[in-house]
Amino acid sequence: MDIQPYLAESKKLVDQFLEKLLPGENEEPAAIHRAMRYSVFAGGKRVRPILVMASGESLGGERMVLLHLGSAVEMMHTYSLIHDDLPALDNDDLRRGQPTCHKIFGEAMAILAGDALMTRCYQVLAALPGVSESTRVRIIGEIANATGTVRGMIGGQVVDLESEGKTVSPDLLEYIHHSKTGALLTACVRCGALAVGATGEELVALTGYGSKVGLVFQIVDDILDVTSSSEELGKTPGKDAKVKKATYPALYGLDASRTKARELVESALRDIAEFGQKADKLRSLARFVLQRTA
Amino acid sequence: MDIQPYLAESKKLVDQFLEKLLPGENEEPAAIHRAMRYSVFAGGKRVRPILVMASGESLGGERMVLLHLGSAVEMMHTYSLIHDDLPALDNDDLRRGQPTCHKIFGEAMAILAGDALMTRCYQVLAALPGVSESTRVRIIGEIANATGTVRGMIGGQVVDLESEGKTVSPDLLEYIHHSKTGALLTACVRCGALAVGATGEELVALTGYGSKVGLVFQIVDDILDVTSSSEELGKTPGKDAKVKKATYPALYGLDASRTKARELVESALRDIAEFGQKADKLRSLARFVLQRTA
Repeated sequence: MDIQPYLAESKKLVDQFLEKLLPGENEEPAAIHRAMRYSVFAGGKRVRPILVMASGESLGGERMVLLHLGSAVEMMHTYSLIHDDLPALDNDDLRRGQPTCHKIFGEAMAILAGDALMTRCYQVLAALPGVSESTRVRIIGEIANATGTVRGMIGGQVVDLESEGKTVSPDLLEYIHHSKTGALLTACVRCGALAVGATGEELVALTGYGSKVGLVFQIVDDILDVTSSSEELGKTPGKDAKVKKATYPALYGLDASRTKARELVESALRDIAEFGQKADKLRSLARFVLQRTA
Repeated sequence: MDIQPYLAESKKLVDQFLEKLLPGENEEPAAIHRAMRYSVFAGGKRVRPILVMASGESLGGERMVLLHLGSAVEMMHTYSLIHDDLPALDNDDLRRGQPTCHKIFGEAMAILAGDALMTRCYQVLAALPGVSESTRVRIIGEIANATGTVRGMIGGQVVDLESEGKTVSPDLLEYIHHSKTGALLTACVRCGALAVGATGEELVALTGYGSKVGLVFQIVDDILDVTSSSEELGKTPGKDAKVKKATYPALYGLDASRTKARELVESALRDIAEFGQKADKLRSLARFVLQRTA
């Protein structure tokens, strides 16, 4: 299938949902709501909500429930971008082709906007309609673990920062990529499935798919940082090499990195080989993550 | 009753629980776990966990469940302190008599340690033992709302920052105090009650008690900033006046602020007048919050 119309339609639906789920830009205190909305609507591809939706839909789930859940996860993702971009961390001026949150609203507001987006994510998850309370608690636990310090997003960011300028072993690189990006992407696939009542077997298959596609996502990110222009990428390229970040191309070279990404996608597709036609979106998504150019 | 032995014993229990609930300082990535533990164990009074416990115990609840919940809330509180102290926000060098997190670990690690403590709080709440899943979801929602942007902690911090150097109306001061400190303190009292199965009527009474004691807590904080030495306070005093923060003493004077605090405590005690002897700790706590000197 051609994934582009699905991506475009899904992004539009997610944006509409985020519009409703975020406090209005005139709601007090307006300054923080403007900062939150600025970063959320600064042009993301909505990969995480789309993974939530495609995963849940592969099991025949309702799109409304999944959209709600996916939009909450996008807030979590956006918080991590805002904080990562801060001067004390990656010190990035551009994100998704736009000035970063602290460039527009100042550091104080950017720190608080990140905090507020994480908080809003949990508010939305705690009140998630169409999902039982026990599943909501499980989803909250999954998301919190995926974004925490032990093999989660924050832990990955810490090790990534610590590794700048050092020689990184393949094991450590895998740890960073799994933790920093892979864990939340995997949680998207898992939570989408949990929200629509996946069986244990389905969950295992989708976890395999999610963790592999998550790693591919990061490998391709690393490759694009080497091969893209600023315009294509929407952020400053070549930064990884400049600060000697641990990356796949740095450790294995570009060709081997591309091969590894291709193999992972093939393996991810095998994980969901038993799934029917409803999983075609997941299949196309895996290929899209491999072939994306920005 | 003499509240001091209860405070000392409760603080010890909370610290033991936090010790278990936080990742070890040698667990990887160790740098962030050290920063998290540093700030959590830098000498807090544990007012929030103690409110959780005293509230739940006033209804005959089990201390173990309440300790677990209270310790999670203390992580949330500590995250807010770490972020508030950052150079971009209040730029404080001292907190609880110790150098602030970013002074020891640097800004990047302090930002991430705050993020990680909030995240860990939700991990613990999602897995809270001895509490039904539906109550856990409700508690998570209460905590997230109390710390969010709309009449919650982050919103209070935003308005507080925006009001520096400006003349603040009584309504706005009440908004700042309610949001920045009162909402989470009230949530402590409410969640302690929810965790042990409070009736609607009990919850209403405790909400009244909590919101009033929460406001007293902030008024006394404002008063202490004017009247205390750095040694007594464990942080730099006189800061509020220096940056022209909106405070009770600035708006009403010291005497009227003290009178207001006393009246609020009396009103809080009336809210729980029908509660039996088990609520004596709550009563003593309200008086303690009024009379504290640090």
